[in-house]
Amino acid sequence: MTTKKIIMDCDPGHDDALAIILAAAQPSLNILGITTVSGNAEIEKTTLNALKICDLVSLHDVVVSKGASEPLVRLRENAPGIHGDSGLDGPVFPEPSRSWSDEHGSDTIIRLVKSSKDPVTILPTGPLTNVALALTKAPEIKDNIEEIVLMGGGTFGNWTPTAEFNIWADPEAAKKVFDSGIPTTVMGLDITHQALATKEVIDQVNEIDNEVAKIVGELLVFFASTYKEMFDFDGAPVHDVLTVAYLVAPELFTMKDVNIAVETKGEFTAGTTLIDLHGVSGREVNAKFGLELDTEGFWQLMIEALKKY
Amino acid sequence: MTTKKIIMDCDPGHDDALAIILAAAQPSLNILGITTVSGNAEIEKTTLNALKICDLVSLHDVVVSKGASEPLVRLRENAPGIHGDSGLDGPVFPEPSRSWSDEHGSDTIIRLVKSSKDPVTILPTGPLTNVALALTKAPEIKDNIEEIVLMGGGTFGNWTPTAEFNIWADPEAAKKVFDSGIPTTVMGLDITHQALATKEVIDQVNEIDNEVAKIVGELLVFFASTYKEMFDFDGAPVHDVLTVAYLVAPELFTMKDVNIAVETKGEFTAGTTLIDLHGVSGREVNAKFGLELDTEGFWQLMIEALKKY
Amino acid sequence: MTTKKIIMDCDPGHDDALAIILAAAQPSLNILGITTVSGNAEIEKTTLNALKICDLVSLHDVVVSKGASEPLVRLRENAPGIHGDSGLDGPVFPEPSRSWSDEHGSDTIIRLVKSSKDPVTILPTGPLTNVALALTKAPEIKDNIEEIVLMGGGTFGNWTPTAEFNIWADPEAAKKVFDSGIPTTVMGLDITHQALATKEVIDQVNEIDNEVAKIVGELLVFFASTYKEMFDFDGAPVHDVLTVAYLVAPELFTMKDVNIAVETKGEFTAGTTLIDLHGVSGREVNAKFGLELDTEGFWQLMIEALKKY
Amino acid sequence: MTTKKIIMDCDPGHDDALAIILAAAQPSLNILGITTVSGNAEIEKTTLNALKICDLVSLHDVVVSKGASEPLVRLRENAPGIHGDSGLDGPVFPEPSRSWSDEHGSDTIIRLVKSSKDPVTILPTGPLTNVALALTKAPEIKDNIEEIVLMGGGTFGNWTPTAEFNIWADPEAAKKVFDSGIPTTVMGLDITHQALATKEVIDQVNEIDNEVAKIVGELLVFFASTYKEMFDFDGAPVHDVLTVAYLVAPELFTMKDVNIAVETKGEFTAGTTLIDLHGVSGREVNAKFGLELDTEGFWQLMIEALKKY
Repeated sequence: MTTKKIIMDCDPGHDDALAIILAAAQPSLNILGITTVSGNAEIEKTTLNALKICDLVSLHDVVVSKGASEPLVRLRENAPGIHGDSGLDGPVFPEPSRSWSDEHGSDTIIRLVKSSKDPVTILPTGPLTNVALALTKAPEIKDNIEEIVLMGGGTFGNWTPTAEFNIWADPEAAKKVFDSGIPTTVMGLDITHQALATKEVIDQVNEIDNEVAKIVGELLVFFASTYKEMFDFDGAPVHDVLTVAYLVAPELFTMKDVNIAVETKGEFTAGTTLIDLHGVSGREVNAKFGLELDTEGFWQLMIEALKKY
Repeated sequence: MTTKKIIMDCDPGHDDALAIILAAAQPSLNILGITTVSGNAEIEKTTLNALKICDLVSLHDVVVSKGASEPLVRLRENAPGIHGDSGLDGPVFPEPSRSWSDEHGSDTIIRLVKSSKDPVTILPTGPLTNVALALTKAPEIKDNIEEIVLMGGGTFGNWTPTAEFNIWADPEAAKKVFDSGIPTTVMGLDITHQALATKEVIDQVNEIDNEVAKIVGELLVFFASTYKEMFDFDGAPVHDVLTVAYLVAPELFTMKDVNIAVETKGEFTAGTTLIDLHGVSGREVNAKFGLELDTEGFWQLMIEALKKY
Repeated sequence: MTTKKIIMDCDPGHDDALAIILAAAQPSLNILGITTVSGNAEIEKTTLNALKICDLVSLHDVVVSKGASEPLVRLRENAPGIHGDSGLDGPVFPEPSRSWSDEHGSDTIIRLVKSSKDPVTILPTGPLTNVALALTKAPEIKDNIEEIVLMGGGTFGNWTPTAEFNIWADPEAAKKVFDSGIPTTVMGLDITHQALATKEVIDQVNEIDNEVAKIVGELLVFFASTYKEMFDFDGAPVHDVLTVAYLVAPELFTMKDVNIAVETKGEFTAGTTLIDLHGVSGREVNAKFGLELDTEGFWQLMIEALKKY
Repeated sequence: MTTKKIIMDCDPGHDDALAIILAAAQPSLNILGITTVSGNAEIEKTTLNALKICDLVSLHDVVVSKGASEPLVRLRENAPGIHGDSGLDGPVFPEPSRSWSDEHGSDTIIRLVKSSKDPVTILPTGPLTNVALALTKAPEIKDNIEEIVLMGGGTFGNWTPTAEFNIWADPEAAKKVFDSGIPTTVMGLDITHQALATKEVIDQVNEIDNEVAKIVGELLVFFASTYKEMFDFDGAPVHDVLTVAYLVAPELFTMKDVNIAVETKGEFTAGTTLIDLHGVSGREVNAKFGLELDTEGFWQLMIEALKKY
């Protein structure tokens, strides 16, 4: 069986944690490394959270590198209102069994991509600072990146009326990625809001009798509570998980080839992604954009993964 | 019966034409004047079209004033791909029976508002240049404007990925209006796309045996054809008509109090309206925004109006 | 003798007042009208000040029209720190003998330009709101405008580090003017700072024994005091006067053909004029820009004008 | 004697080369490392040029690290019209005796600052990409940076009407540096244009009988020729050298504490530095800005340094 080599660049974060959990259960995915970034929480927290999840799913041999603690240009902002103070509130985790690598996350991306015999797929599920740093320092890695499958953006926003948090938090980094020429696949809010962890989903998770599923249940309960409070959603959208699901089950996704431009200027619109669904901009296609999710199939994939633990 | 005094500031345009036709049939609306603006077509065309529609529905005593031929600051752009070369392609109209007023549209707005005993409601269904000119020249008219009910903007775009045509065509004018403090009600693409003139609707219109309905049928057929071609819609959204419908049947509309900011800067986003549905911006409410239309009720209103002719 | 027909669009303002005084003394200039704008002070004040100066120099037959009380798009800001609370602090003026016209300043510009047999020169010495309004309402007036000779902009700023007050106060209006295609001559800070009313100049003025010179002396003393305080200048630059001086004595001016672009966006730079002295922008020449003034000759012109009263 | 530990972050470039030559002759300066950046020429060229100059002045033990080949976000642009195709046209250099380090320039900055017992002064004389990368990856280095003394910006521009090349080439990186809170000293065009290598200067250089002076003479001749052609200057301004001169002879410099903001948005003004000489912005002082140079003293310093070789 051929496996896909991936780097998970993330800011756990509830949905990032679930993405790692789903990925670790896939024989078809070879996780080369996990790099962290400031986003849902400060960098120390997202890095600790990544290490805790690695312990949970026994990813003991995967390098975990701490990446950017702040955006390329702008001031740092995090999202404690969504993910709680730790960035991963809900369950109680033991202290992680190891520390992070000495290597900066952006350098881990460069090293892993350069040293891999096969092209590597990068799955950014936080602000794109690490990837932009890697591309600025070592633009030659583009040649060995198969695809960037990221969570971010959408035709509407969640952090401002038009901007999604990951892109908004570092628009310049996002612009760098979208302008890079690397094949890019985007799970934006349009499709991630179709992946709501409803009460029914949580019930299904809770029926699975293992430690990982128990933690996932607790994560989903906390995450749902903040989405209820802030956006009046019936269930939390597990945004980041879709990047992993897409790699293993692309048939669950209806995608569209579009141009995506990132606004970095503007008085109100920095971080807005312009998803050109109708080709009105005249700009060339530079991304695949997620339109529709087979929601049932998606949760089935997730449930089956959890049962394996 | 109390009547509402209105000024229709428009760029006919198929849906502007329908808006006038609907308004002229309402005993509860007193049309003080019609002012035109460059938008769907050049100013001479939109003004001629307004005069033609006035003839069609016997609005012989309503002043028709030609307004701005270009935006406040930017270069003019029109939309022949949507409305045809005349701005009102489809039916064959006789030459209008009269010419436009000598007064500039923006001055007509100022004069009518100042001279009206009762507060006036303005219905802009094109770019907001005339209204912005009037507000810049005579800011004191704000005191006698009851409400601005406009078609424009939305949480997504039609002319760029994030901007709707009317706002995009003169973003500075739109900013002026939204920042004016005047009570503003917005029919954006979110709700106007719920008012599709489908084949069923057109069939209903065609069953009505009068000249006005015949013309409306022809307008809808042409308009539907360009929306099919450009956006693959099954029926044309009759955007502008919703401003009139809202005045006579507000019960058909689910509205939400929101802040709306207009982007005038940005590399890609000029003319984007930030509709703050979830209160994430911290900016104060300055508009009512149309969320949901009772589509059936809306078309019933339209059909009944047509039957009166 | 052929006379040049001019409209003075101003916001008196000490230097605007001096510009009117210089112009009224020139047989070669035919002042068709004076229009006022909010700028140095609020519109009522600048209009009253214009009327007072007209009385002082017996311009009883020249129409004075009140123009824009606020910019096209932005919020109004005035400069009481420079011109005092009245906009013309220093001398005590009698109440003006007449009131302003009923016509809006922008409409006066349109009417005068349209009705003039000969092309008209416009001398804007405040924010460009009236001119932009006129150009938006009646773009056809371009054909009968000989030249716009304005005070504004420069390669450095006085209101922000890079923006001069007149342009900064309404950048969108300025953009409209510079993009209009009308021949435009610009007296920016580079050259107006060469026209300092020093102690020696004021002494010369005070030696002239007439009422106008007495008032001018008082205006210069006040103006010098605020420039001393705010910018540590030894004498006030009589910016606006250069527009008039240029018309009657162009030989005093070293000019350069350049492109001038107006920034309307930017985080810090709205209202900045990009004066392309070295042709680095690749944009086409659209203005004459004042580089060097024969300062002595300029003051001689002014002194001689004052002696005529 | 205490020595100042410096890192030279440069894009040689004629004036960068001179800066290294001046620095290498100073016993009071300890050059910890030289890092290169794309700017005057592409990264390979500027790095080769740095190595050639190191050979020329026997800096055999100083690490030379190749840094960023492109800006943080924008597209790369170089300045062959100013520095010739090699970035250092004029003299013929032998091939360098060694290659660059394996370490990225930005990482060399991080490593040298972190490992230095004493605070380090950084002298950026090219676009600020490396410094911004270092600050993003390792913000903690701020604590051991004594000062950043950079060449860039000014109250006027050379690459656009308002922007100087180094800042314009990577405005986002410049913003990062100016917003970092690190003590920053700026040699902008206002002062560097006072350091013209005139014919008299070149004559003095040519009288010195050593290899280094001979090369410097050739560099100055070439550099003067492009400045003559592009800007009609009588002599080339040796911009970058002022950063080194300031460290060893601050008494030659009249400086002013100011706020400097970097425009990263704008339609025309990206890369413009707003030097707030008169405190009109209300923003806090964040830089020392070079106003006046003792030009004679400066050239004396340079000539004496050349005589030491």
